[in-house]
Amino acid sequence: MIVVMKAGASNKDIEHVVERIEELGLKAHLSTGVERTIIGVIGDERLIKKEQLSLLPHVENVIPVLKPYKLASREFRKADSIVDVAGVKIGGMKLAVIAGPCSVETEEQLMATAETVKATGAQLLRGGAYKPRTSPYAFQGLGEDGLKLLAKAREKTGLGIVTEVMESAEVELVAEYADMLQVGARNMQNTKLLRSLSKIKKPVLLKRNFSATLVEFLMSAEYLLSGGNDQVVLCERGIRTFVDFTRNTLDLNIVPAVKLLSHLPIIVDPSHGTGRIDLILPMSRAAIACGADGLIVEVHPKPAEAFSDGDQSLTPSMFRQLTTEVKTIAEAVGRTM
Amino acid sequence: MIVVMKAGASNKDIEHVVERIEELGLKAHLSTGVERTIIGVIGDERLIKKEQLSLLPHVENVIPVLKPYKLASREFRKADSIVDVAGVKIGGMKLAVIAGPCSVETEEQLMATAETVKATGAQLLRGGAYKPRTSPYAFQGLGEDGLKLLAKAREKTGLGIVTEVMESAEVELVAEYADMLQVGARNMQNTKLLRSLSKIKKPVLLKRNFSATLVEFLMSAEYLLSGGNDQVVLCERGIRTFVDFTRNTLDLNIVPAVKLLSHLPIIVDPSHGTGRIDLILPMSRAAIACGADGLIVEVHPKPAEAFSDGDQSLTPSMFRQLTTEVKTIAEAVGRTM
Amino acid sequence: MIVVMKAGASNKDIEHVVERIEELGLKAHLSTGVERTIIGVIGDERLIKKEQLSLLPHVENVIPVLKPYKLASREFRKADSIVDVAGVKIGGMKLAVIAGPCSVETEEQLMATAETVKATGAQLLRGGAYKPRTSPYAFQGLGEDGLKLLAKAREKTGLGIVTEVMESAEVELVAEYADMLQVGARNMQNTKLLRSLSKIKKPVLLKRNFSATLVEFLMSAEYLLSGGNDQVVLCERGIRTFVDFTRNTLDLNIVPAVKLLSHLPIIVDPSHGTGRIDLILPMSRAAIACGADGLIVEVHPKPAEAFSDGDQSLTPSMFRQLTTEVKTIAEAVGRTM
Amino acid sequence: MIVVMKAGASNKDIEHVVERIEELGLKAHLSTGVERTIIGVIGDERLIKKEQLSLLPHVENVIPVLKPYKLASREFRKADSIVDVAGVKIGGMKLAVIAGPCSVETEEQLMATAETVKATGAQLLRGGAYKPRTSPYAFQGLGEDGLKLLAKAREKTGLGIVTEVMESAEVELVAEYADMLQVGARNMQNTKLLRSLSKIKKPVLLKRNFSATLVEFLMSAEYLLSGGNDQVVLCERGIRTFVDFTRNTLDLNIVPAVKLLSHLPIIVDPSHGTGRIDLILPMSRAAIACGADGLIVEVHPKPAEAFSDGDQSLTPSMFRQLTTEVKTIAEAVGRTM
Repeated sequence: MIVVMKAGASNKDIEHVVERIEELGLKAHLSTGVERTIIGVIGDERLIKKEQLSLLPHVENVIPVLKPYKLASREFRKADSIVDVAGVKIGGMKLAVIAGPCSVETEEQLMATAETVKATGAQLLRGGAYKPRTSPYAFQGLGEDGLKLLAKAREKTGLGIVTEVMESAEVELVAEYADMLQVGARNMQNTKLLRSLSKIKKPVLLKRNFSATLVEFLMSAEYLLSGGNDQVVLCERGIRTFVDFTRNTLDLNIVPAVKLLSHLPIIVDPSHGTGRIDLILPMSRAAIACGADGLIVEVHPKPAEAFSDGDQSLTPSMFRQLTTEVKTIAEAVGRTM
Repeated sequence: MIVVMKAGASNKDIEHVVERIEELGLKAHLSTGVERTIIGVIGDERLIKKEQLSLLPHVENVIPVLKPYKLASREFRKADSIVDVAGVKIGGMKLAVIAGPCSVETEEQLMATAETVKATGAQLLRGGAYKPRTSPYAFQGLGEDGLKLLAKAREKTGLGIVTEVMESAEVELVAEYADMLQVGARNMQNTKLLRSLSKIKKPVLLKRNFSATLVEFLMSAEYLLSGGNDQVVLCERGIRTFVDFTRNTLDLNIVPAVKLLSHLPIIVDPSHGTGRIDLILPMSRAAIACGADGLIVEVHPKPAEAFSDGDQSLTPSMFRQLTTEVKTIAEAVGRTM
Repeated sequence: MIVVMKAGASNKDIEHVVERIEELGLKAHLSTGVERTIIGVIGDERLIKKEQLSLLPHVENVIPVLKPYKLASREFRKADSIVDVAGVKIGGMKLAVIAGPCSVETEEQLMATAETVKATGAQLLRGGAYKPRTSPYAFQGLGEDGLKLLAKAREKTGLGIVTEVMESAEVELVAEYADMLQVGARNMQNTKLLRSLSKIKKPVLLKRNFSATLVEFLMSAEYLLSGGNDQVVLCERGIRTFVDFTRNTLDLNIVPAVKLLSHLPIIVDPSHGTGRIDLILPMSRAAIACGADGLIVEVHPKPAEAFSDGDQSLTPSMFRQLTTEVKTIAEAVGRTM
Repeated sequence: MIVVMKAGASNKDIEHVVERIEELGLKAHLSTGVERTIIGVIGDERLIKKEQLSLLPHVENVIPVLKPYKLASREFRKADSIVDVAGVKIGGMKLAVIAGPCSVETEEQLMATAETVKATGAQLLRGGAYKPRTSPYAFQGLGEDGLKLLAKAREKTGLGIVTEVMESAEVELVAEYADMLQVGARNMQNTKLLRSLSKIKKPVLLKRNFSATLVEFLMSAEYLLSGGNDQVVLCERGIRTFVDFTRNTLDLNIVPAVKLLSHLPIIVDPSHGTGRIDLILPMSRAAIACGADGLIVEVHPKPAEAFSDGDQSLTPSMFRQLTTEVKTIAEAVGRTM
């Protein structure tokens, strides 16, 4: 931590800060510049709160030096983490493709989708039983009945199941059915939910919130890791910006940035990330090109009839096209599908 | 709902859309323009999903005409709603001032703050027992012990209690102690929590999420209203933008916008909204000047020692200054404090 | 400037940075922490470029300590600057109100507006002769004919003229007619224009760009000040965010922030800032309440017939209402109108 | 254009709108819904201003149906435009790679860079002679001397020259030296500059402004096209968002979106778009994967010594790596380099 003193700070002001740092069990190191003095804080800065120094008289600014996340950092673990979801490895050379409908609607719809995505090469099946909807009047998901249909689809196709859990009270129930539990963008900072998920033995798919910085995203992963669950896969799914031609702004820049700062795998959701069927294919190619470990895509046999997110669901034939195109990109970057 | 056909749409394409609209139980009305045809959908558009029409061939765009919220709208209720929190009316001529520490830390800290804010004119006491923190290593609140201290502070000062609830499983417990339950910004779209809160008989303070549009904010209120709880107060507390001189960008524009579109009261949180002690006073004056029904402000006897949010907590003397200044603005806009 | 070394940096890496700092004519000061070393750079950091250090091996980060603006800073000049525009003082106790149409359209329109705003209490007349429009097919202003009409309006009413200049080649011409030259939001970083304006003896109204940070805004003012023109008034007029209920998001937080960091006056443009007639009055009150030195407002005798910006132009009677309301706020904050 | 009437609008209000539409030379078409009436405007809506209808009594909203750009639209020209820059075709099957230093600094620096990028496969040389800098104290470019050095580099290497022009008064001069004139992000809406560039016979590289929507970006292209210059190449270079791990947020989504809506070529600038050397390679791969027609990249022999943008300049060996990687992606999407 570095304390920058204001231009007019007196020796007494500076001494006061030094004393406070020492009271807190750390050491202070002065650098007297031409215009102002800066004080280096030596010791583990995570032990103190910024305000303990920033509110002292004549302090202009306090700048943290250490990253606030530890277990999620590349420094903590040099090698890429690989997460195993029902036998599918996420984070290695082989890309993971997760596909399925936004919502589980009916047995017929789910089975048809599951079989078609399996035949096309998806390794895991996605489908929402609990849906966080903007409107109270919209379809909120089938709940446990949806989970049962997902289990049935797994039985039939062999595909592992990825599905969202919305609150800590439901973690146990969802974990009974799912192979991977998804934390939706709206719940990325639901710390109660994160703590519950940190105690289970199943992998978690953590989606980035609409307005989360990279540090906040990794801090949410840190909740899971520090609680004991290191089976974490990150997922970029679009941020809120002024841009209006896409529903969200898919921020692919975070993919290589995560690779630099963290050992965790990261996949991309181009369906929510763009909200437009006609952008899903090119942005899927781009995601793999910049280093994503996989994709999660919405597929529906009849998008126009979907209970939710029809506007961004691929038809089975579009999904087939996607896997073909993504495969050539995967090969170009030295990976397989 | 208005369906805009693409420039080259044939009569057959248009007929196909018309048929689909009629199948869905609504009526279609054609306007054939110079470059393209638009089709008005007559009937309650809330009964259909946009995708049921937008994905038909040669449809360029589908534009909703009705607002998606109903009970929260000014059209539904012309008069301003007034919410009663332990005898304090929010939404009328008299402004509500809610003050207290970010977190409940110790009995001593809470009692000292409660007494000082009461003496200065606050009508309700805020204080967090459950804290949603970015870092798993940060103080997460005292939990039920914190609630008990809040109840004790109420007993001693007579101030009603406003405190955050973080998940549906805790609603009942928090409601036992609190006079008003706060939904934090991170939980604005936690629909399970909203549904639980819609079933209780206590008022709810609903904070706007960092990236929520006005419609999304009102839709979260609609969850509460449609579930049966009409004791809802909205709260603006800053949005995420590129701006870096404030922690968040306090968006006061939403105050008069809510007044136009909704009957619900709205208050402002300048502490989180700016994250800077030196901006809280001027932005509090501005909030009242543009029509806010009150303020919620963080006050701490020793901000530099606060367990959380010290950087944005007022000292008791700054809070006294705030109430004095806000009072003159209140009078200038014909309100009282 | 502070250089933060990576965790694994060797003594040789550190020495290499120290040598480079000394080569650049500055001194280095080491603080060896538990996890990493930080190096304070002593001397005027403005003399070197960040990259000269940040790209050296094992450097993690380089943090500037000094603000990049100097003449615009409060440290350079403690007292508030007051700018004189044709006898109207901007920045003192008395608020400045600038009003008029978006575009100068016809003599009749301009004279009617000028007389009405003068009668209502405006001290300066705004009106665009050169208009930067999004569309090449939209009205682009009357050019010099518009300037002549503005001069005529000044003659008739005595109101000083504020009008936009769009490029350096036109500064001389516009300066012949105008009492204050406006730099529009789109030109805030048109450095050629800023340099030309820094050489004239007329005051400049510098509007904040849609995506400008506070530092960038003050750096544009620094272009004017460092070139020799210290008659600079800043103007907040809304930023680009995800928010869609206003045309732009009026960021009033910048008003008190500018007051802390700079001595320059700042006024607010609620017309462009909100883009909605129904929000202009409440946001004008808020602007004054948080410390703005004045307002610039669009007024048109018949907004529905305006050549541009009709959606955000007040009628004369609304403008009268605005001045009445703003006056009571001005008094509440100890200022006059 | 569609006029949505308020819920309580009377027949008289509706008739009033209809009359106004007819006065403006267009036809009105009524659709009477359950809750409100909508009025379709038949004829060329570009002839009227939205406000002429939106400000009439009891009008809730006016929704444009047509896109405001015409010549830039895919509807106007179905086939992809191909722009020829000194013999290099941009927009066809072969990708264009433009490389060079941020600023022209010295003859030695420029020649070394030109030769190295040519040897590595760049087809055009970039380099700034006029630099729009945030700070008045930063290097502002060599001006005409820089242009002369660029011409010398062309002579020596045969590479065509791409360089920025900052104001209309300099268009003629810059056009004498350059093969393609660049409009920087800060000048995307400098309409005087756009008009001047629309009159010359040289191709223009139009960079997207930090806060430009897709429509605004295409409208700036429309200035060029409607003025007579159809040699326009668009360039994405990052937008302003809350994200802080990149200098800007490279918005690759705009690449396939432009391909859908326009016939103009679009290239990507990953140097400014990310501002981080370590993200340039992966984001270059992604740009090509989602359909960009080329790249413009900053290369400097010694980035740490660069007069500007050293933080985002590749060394020659990194640039070699980039071309190798991009080539494999180009082939994967059926293009060449």
